[in-house]
Amino acid sequence: MNNLSSKLLEAAVNELAKLPGIGRKTAVRLALHLLRQNVSDVEVLGNALIKMRSEICFCKICFNVSDTEVCDICSNPARDSGVVCVVEDVRDVMAIENTSQYKGHYHVLGGVISPMDGVGPGDLNIEPLVNRIREGSVREVIMALSPTMEGDTTNFYIYKRLKDLKVLITTIARGVSIGDNLEYTDEITLGRSITNRLPYETTFNR
Amino acid sequence: MNNLSSKLLEAAVNELAKLPGIGRKTAVRLALHLLRQNVSDVEVLGNALIKMRSEICFCKICFNVSDTEVCDICSNPARDSGVVCVVEDVRDVMAIENTSQYKGHYHVLGGVISPMDGVGPGDLNIEPLVNRIREGSVREVIMALSPTMEGDTTNFYIYKRLKDLKVLITTIARGVSIGDNLEYTDEITLGRSITNRLPYETTFNR
Repeated sequence: MNNLSSKLLEAAVNELAKLPGIGRKTAVRLALHLLRQNVSDVEVLGNALIKMRSEICFCKICFNVSDTEVCDICSNPARDSGVVCVVEDVRDVMAIENTSQYKGHYHVLGGVISPMDGVGPGDLNIEPLVNRIREGSVREVIMALSPTMEGDTTNFYIYKRLKDLKVLITTIARGVSIGDNLEYTDEITLGRSITNRLPYETTFNR
Repeated sequence: MNNLSSKLLEAAVNELAKLPGIGRKTAVRLALHLLRQNVSDVEVLGNALIKMRSEICFCKICFNVSDTEVCDICSNPARDSGVVCVVEDVRDVMAIENTSQYKGHYHVLGGVISPMDGVGPGDLNIEPLVNRIREGSVREVIMALSPTMEGDTTNFYIYKRLKDLKVLITTIARGVSIGDNLEYTDEITLGRSITNRLPYETTFNR
C-alpha cells in the first residue's frame, strides 16, 4: 500500500499508522473512511483528540485522568478515603469501577516496574503514594496490579516501602475465574487457589 | 468500559469508536496511548486528519484522490491514456499500482451497485465513464472489480452501457492464485480456471 496519490492522504495515513495495533493497511482503510465523512465530522474527531491531550489533567491526589484538579472519585464524600486501591493505569480504575464492588479511593501508578522496558520505581507515582500513606488517614492499601512478574515485583517494592508505616497491606484474590473450567486452568493459578482456600461460609453473602 | 472519569476523554473515545473496526475498548486504549504522547504529536495527528478531509480533491478525469485537479496518473505523459482500468475504490488503484504491471489510466467508480445497501448506478461515477469513452480516444476498458455478486452486477451494467460504443471491453483474469494449493481452491474458481485455460506458451514471458 505505497503509491498513495496524494500527499495529504499520505500524511494522514502515516499519522494513523503510528497508533498501537494499527498497521499501514488499516490506516489506509481508516483514512478513506474519513474521506467519505462530512468535513465537520472529521473536524469533531480531530479537535476532540487535540483538546483531550492539551486540556486533560491528572488528579493531584490519585493521578487518575480528570477534568479538574481533584478527580470525581477523590472529591466524592460518599466514598471511603481510608482505603486506597493501587492500580497500574487508568483502564484498571475503569475496570474496577465497572464491578460496582469498590467504594474506596484509588492510586494510579502509571505503569509497573520493568527493567526490560527501562521503567524503574522513580518513573512511577510511588513516592506520592508513600507520602499519602505517611499522612496517616489511610487504614488499608489494596494492591491490584496484574499477576505478572512485573506486577509482583512492583507489589513487593511497594510492600517494602510501606511495611513500617501503620497501614494494612492487602492484595486482590487470585484464583480460578468464575465460569472457568478447572481442567483448563493453569497450574500456578490452580495451585494458589488451593493454598489460599477459604472457609466455605465466606462465599454465602456474595 | 463506561465510567470514564473525564468528559474530554469520553468525547475522544466516542469519536474514535465511530471509526470502522474500532470498538469502545480499542478506542479507550488508543485515547490513553495519545494521552502519553506529546501535545505536539497529537496536534499533528488531529490536524493531518482535518487537513486531509478539507483540502483533498478528486481527479476530475478518473476520480482518484489527488492534491491537484488532475491526478499524477492522468497527467503523466508516459502512461497510455488509451487504456482505462475501472476499479471500485482508491485502494484498488494502490493495489494495482503496487504490481507495477499496469501503465494505463484508471476510473474509480466509488463503489459497486448494491441494492441491499441502497447503492444504485446513479450513486457511482458511471456516467462520467460513459462520457469519457464516448469521446473516442479510449481503445480498451479493463473491468477490475471484485469477483462478488455486486461486482459482477456492476460489470454487467457497465458492459450494457458501453457495448454500442467503439471500445474493447476486457476483464481481469480469474483463476487459481499463484502459490495456492489446488485442493483448497473453491470449486467456482477452479471450474473457471479450467474453462478459461490458456495456451501454455503464453505463460513463458511472464
